[in-house]
Amino acid sequence: MMTRTPDADVDYWAVIFTNQRSLGDDEAYEATAERMVELGSTMPGFLGIESTRNAQGLGITVSYWRSEDDLLAWKQVSEHAAAQAKGRSDWYSRYTTRIARVTREYSFESSDTDDHDS
Amino acid sequence: MMTRTPDADVDYWAVIFTNQRSLGDDEAYEATAERMVELGSTMPGFLGIESTRNAQGLGITVSYWRSEDDLLAWKQVSEHAAAQAKGRSDWYSRYTTRIARVTREYSFESSDTDDHDS
Repeated sequence: MMTRTPDADVDYWAVIFTNQRSLGDDEAYEATAERMVELGSTMPGFLGIESTRNAQGLGITVSYWRSEDDLLAWKQVSEHAAAQAKGRSDWYSRYTTRIARVTREYSFESSDTDDHDS
Repeated sequence: MMTRTPDADVDYWAVIFTNQRSLGDDEAYEATAERMVELGSTMPGFLGIESTRNAQGLGITVSYWRSEDDLLAWKQVSEHAAAQAKGRSDWYSRYTTRIARVTREYSFESSDTDDHDS
Protein backbone atom coordinates (compact mmCIF):
# COMPACT_ATOMS: atom_id res chain seq x y z
CA MET A 1 0.00 0.00 0.00
CA MET A 2 1.07 3.58 -0.58
CA THR A 3 -0.36 6.53 1.29
CA ARG A 4 -1.02 10.27 0.97
CA THR A 5 0.52 12.49 3.61
CA PRO A 6 0.15 16.24 4.22
CA ASP A 7 1.54 18.96 1.99
CA ALA A 8 5.27 19.45 1.88
CA ASP A 9 5.20 22.56 4.07
CA VAL A 10 3.82 20.64 7.03
CA ASP A 11 6.30 18.69 9.16
CA TYR A 12 5.11 15.32 10.35
CA TRP A 13 6.73 12.19 11.76
CA ALA A 14 7.65 8.79 10.36
CA VAL A 15 8.35 5.48 12.09
CA ILE A 16 10.62 3.42 9.81
CA PHE A 17 10.41 -0.22 10.83
CA THR A 18 12.86 -2.48 8.96
CA ASN A 19 12.55 -6.14 9.86
CA GLN A 20 13.54 -9.67 8.95
CA ARG A 21 10.83 -12.29 9.44
CA SER A 22 11.72 -15.61 11.02
CA LEU A 23 10.47 -18.73 9.29
CA GLY A 24 6.97 -20.01 10.02
CA ASP A 25 3.86 -18.93 11.97
CA ASP A 26 2.64 -16.96 8.96
CA GLU A 27 -1.08 -17.16 9.74
CA ALA A 28 -0.85 -15.74 13.25
CA TYR A 29 1.64 -13.15 12.06
CA GLU A 30 -0.55 -11.96 9.19
CA ALA A 31 -3.63 -11.74 11.41
CA THR A 32 -1.76 -9.66 13.98
CA ALA A 33 -0.17 -7.43 11.35
CA GLU A 34 -3.58 -6.71 9.85
CA ARG A 35 -5.04 -6.04 13.28
CA MET A 36 -2.22 -3.60 14.08
CA VAL A 37 -2.91 -1.61 10.90
CA GLU A 38 -6.61 -1.56 11.75
CA LEU A 39 -6.02 -0.51 15.35
CA GLY A 40 -3.20 1.94 14.61
CA SER A 41 -5.25 3.76 11.99
CA THR A 42 -7.84 4.64 14.64
CA MET A 43 -5.22 6.40 16.79
CA PRO A 44 -5.15 10.21 17.05
CA GLY A 45 -2.61 11.70 14.67
CA PHE A 46 -2.32 8.66 12.38
CA LEU A 47 -1.68 9.86 8.81
CA GLY A 48 -1.02 6.67 6.87
CA ILE A 49 1.11 3.56 6.48
CA GLU A 50 3.22 2.00 3.73
CA SER A 51 4.40 -1.59 3.95
CA THR A 52 6.10 -4.17 1.74
CA ARG A 53 8.04 -7.41 2.12
CA ASN A 54 10.06 -9.47 -0.33
CA ALA A 55 10.22 -13.25 -0.84
CA GLN A 56 13.25 -13.48 1.49
CA GLY A 57 11.18 -12.06 4.37
CA LEU A 58 12.76 -8.60 4.47
CA GLY A 59 10.07 -6.05 5.29
CA ILE A 60 9.92 -2.29 5.55
CA THR A 61 6.89 -0.61 7.09
CA VAL A 62 6.70 3.16 7.43
CA SER A 63 3.87 4.74 9.41
CA TYR A 64 3.23 8.50 9.44
CA TRP A 65 2.05 10.58 12.38
CA ARG A 66 1.06 14.18 12.99
CA SER A 67 3.34 14.55 16.02
CA GLU A 68 5.94 12.69 18.05
CA ASP A 69 3.49 12.49 20.96
CA ASP A 70 0.99 10.72 18.72
CA LEU A 71 3.45 8.02 17.66
CA LEU A 72 4.67 7.53 21.25
CA ALA A 73 1.07 7.09 22.41
CA TRP A 74 0.59 4.35 19.81
CA LYS A 75 3.73 2.59 21.01
CA GLN A 76 2.24 2.37 24.52
CA VAL A 77 -1.16 0.88 23.55
CA SER A 78 -1.30 -2.44 25.41
CA GLU A 79 -2.46 -4.59 22.48
CA HIS A 80 0.33 -3.08 20.38
CA ALA A 81 2.91 -3.66 23.12
CA ALA A 82 1.80 -7.32 23.30
CA ALA A 83 2.25 -7.64 19.53
CA GLN A 84 5.73 -6.12 19.77
CA ALA A 85 6.68 -8.66 22.45
CA LYS A 86 5.37 -11.50 20.27
CA GLY A 87 7.38 -10.05 17.40
CA ARG A 88 10.57 -10.34 19.43
CA SER A 89 9.85 -13.84 20.74
CA ASP A 90 8.40 -15.45 17.57
CA TRP A 91 8.25 -13.41 14.39
CA TYR A 92 11.37 -11.36 13.76
CA SER A 93 14.98 -12.44 13.73
CA ARG A 94 15.98 -8.78 13.77
CA TYR A 95 14.57 -5.34 13.31
CA THR A 96 15.44 -1.69 13.58
CA THR A 97 12.94 1.04 14.38
CA ARG A 98 13.82 4.62 13.53
CA ILE A 99 11.87 7.74 14.50
CA ALA A 100 12.23 10.57 12.03
CA ARG A 101 10.81 13.99 11.34
CA VAL A 102 9.75 14.42 7.71
CA THR A 103 10.69 17.83 6.43
CA ARG A 104 9.93 17.56 2.71
CA GLU A 105 8.15 15.27 0.29
CA TYR A 106 7.53 15.12 -3.42
CA SER A 107 5.52 12.73 -5.52
CA PHE A 108 5.29 11.50 -9.08
CA GLU A 109 2.40 9.76 -10.79
CA SER A 110 2.56 8.48 -14.34
CA SER A 111 -0.24 9.11 -16.80
CA ASP A 112 0.25 5.51 -17.97
CA THR A 113 -1.74 2.81 -16.23
CA ASP A 114 0.21 -0.35 -17.01
CA ASP A 115 1.35 -1.00 -13.46
CA HIS A 116 0.97 -4.09 -11.29
CA ASP A 117 -1.90 -2.50 -9.37
CA SER A 118 -4.22 -1.82 -12.29
CA MET B 1 19.39 -5.74 2.90
CA MET B 2 19.43 -4.14 6.32
CA THR B 3 22.00 -1.64 7.47
CA ARG B 4 23.75 -0.33 10.57
CA THR B 5 23.48 3.38 11.23
CA PRO B 6 25.12 5.53 13.92
CA ASP B 7 24.27 5.45 17.60
CA ALA B 8 20.95 6.83 18.70
CA ASP B 9 22.40 10.07 20.03
CA VAL B 10 23.61 11.14 16.59
CA ASP B 11 21.04 12.73 14.30
CA TYR B 12 21.27 11.70 10.67
CA TRP B 13 19.02 11.86 7.62
CA ALA B 14 16.85 9.39 5.75
CA VAL B 15 15.45 9.44 2.22
CA ILE B 16 12.30 7.29 2.18
CA PHE B 17 11.53 6.33 -1.43
CA THR B 18 8.21 4.48 -1.81
CA ASN B 19 7.50 3.37 -5.35
CA GLN B 20 5.30 1.25 -7.56
CA ARG B 21 7.09 -0.46 -10.46
CA SER B 22 5.47 -0.49 -13.90
CA LEU B 23 5.37 -3.80 -15.71
CA GLY B 24 8.36 -4.89 -17.78
CA ASP B 25 11.91 -3.78 -18.48
CA ASP B 26 13.16 -5.68 -15.44
CA GLU B 27 16.69 -6.31 -16.69
CA ALA B 28 17.54 -2.68 -17.42
CA TYR B 29 15.83 -1.63 -14.21
CA GLU B 30 17.74 -4.09 -12.05
CA ALA B 31 21.07 -3.14 -13.62
CA THR B 32 20.44 0.55 -12.99
CA ALA B 33 19.19 -0.04 -9.44
CA GLU B 34 22.36 -1.99 -8.63
CA ARG B 35 24.52 0.67 -10.21
CA MET B 36 22.82 3.40 -8.17
CA VAL B 37 23.52 1.52 -4.91
CA GLU B 38 27.14 1.07 -5.98
CA LEU B 39 27.53 4.72 -6.99
CA GLY B 40 25.54 6.18 -4.07
CA SER B 41 27.58 4.24 -1.53
CA THR B 42 30.74 6.03 -2.69
CA MET B 43 29.22 9.46 -1.97
CA PRO B 44 30.40 11.52 1.03
CA GLY B 45 28.09 11.06 4.01
CA PHE B 46 26.47 7.83 2.81
CA LEU B 47 25.62 5.69 5.86
CA GLY B 48 23.66 2.77 4.41
CA ILE B 49 20.62 1.63 2.45
CA GLU B 50 17.68 -0.71 3.03
CA SER B 51 15.50 -1.87 0.16
CA THR B 52 12.72 -4.38 -0.41
CA ARG B 53 9.95 -5.01 -2.97
CA ASN B 54 6.97 -7.36 -2.95
CA ALA B 55 5.56 -9.53 -5.75
CA GLN B 56 3.07 -6.77 -6.68
CA GLY B 57 5.94 -4.40 -7.45
CA LEU B 58 5.58 -2.16 -4.39
CA GLY B 59 9.04 -1.12 -3.22
CA ILE B 60 10.39 0.86 -0.31
CA THR B 61 14.03 1.97 -0.31
CA VAL B 62 15.45 4.00 2.57
CA SER B 63 18.94 5.48 2.29
CA TYR B 64 20.72 7.09 5.23
CA TRP B 65 22.98 10.13 5.15
CA ARG B 66 25.15 12.03 7.58
CA SER B 67 23.67 15.41 6.64
CA GLU B 68 21.01 16.99 4.47
CA ASP B 69 23.73 18.54 2.28
CA ASP B 70 25.12 15.05 1.61
CA LEU B 71 21.78 13.66 0.39
CA LEU B 72 21.14 16.75 -1.73
CA ALA B 73 24.57 16.35 -3.36
CA TRP B 74 23.69 12.75 -4.28
CA LYS B 75 20.41 13.89 -5.81
CA GLN B 76 22.35 16.19 -8.18
CA VAL B 77 24.87 13.63 -9.47
CA SER B 78 24.28 13.50 -13.22
CA GLU B 79 24.18 9.71 -13.58
CA HIS B 80 21.69 9.60 -10.72
CA ALA B 81 19.59 12.37 -12.24
CA ALA B 82 19.48 10.42 -15.53
CA ALA B 83 18.31 7.31 -13.66
CA GLN B 84 15.59 9.34 -11.95
CA ALA B 85 14.36 10.61 -15.32
CA LYS B 86 14.30 7.06 -16.68
CA GLY B 87 12.38 6.05 -13.56
CA ARG B 88 9.68 8.56 -14.36
CA SER B 89 9.49 7.73 -18.08
CA ASP B 90 9.76 3.92 -17.91
CA TRP B 91 10.00 2.23 -14.53
CA TYR B 92 7.63 3.69 -11.96
CA SER B 93 3.90 4.28 -12.20
CA ARG B 94 4.13 6.40 -9.05
CA TYR B 95 6.45 7.22 -6.24
CA THR B 96 6.84 9.47 -3.23
CA THR B 97 10.18 10.64 -1.87
CA ARG B 98 10.33 11.92 1.68
CA ILE B 99 13.31 13.60 3.36
CA ALA B 100 13.42 13.03 7.11
CA ARG B 101 15.72 13.67 10.04
CA VAL B 102 16.21 10.57 12.19
CA THR B 103 16.16 11.47 15.86
CA ARG B 104 16.13 8.04 17.52
CA GLU B 105 16.66 4.39 16.66
CA TYR B 106 16.54 1.07 18.46
CA SER B 107 17.30 -2.42 17.27
CA PHE B 108 16.52 -5.99 18.18
CA GLU B 109 18.38 -9.14 17.18
CA SER B 110 17.21 -12.61 18.11
CA SER B 111 19.59 -15.20 19.44
CA ASP B 112 17.77 -17.73 17.23
CA THR B 113 19.11 -18.23 13.74
CA ASP B 114 16.13 -19.75 11.88
CA ASP B 115 15.51 -16.79 9.62
CA HIS B 116 15.25 -16.63 5.84
CA ASP B 117 18.74 -15.19 5.58
CA SER B 118 20.60 -17.98 7.31
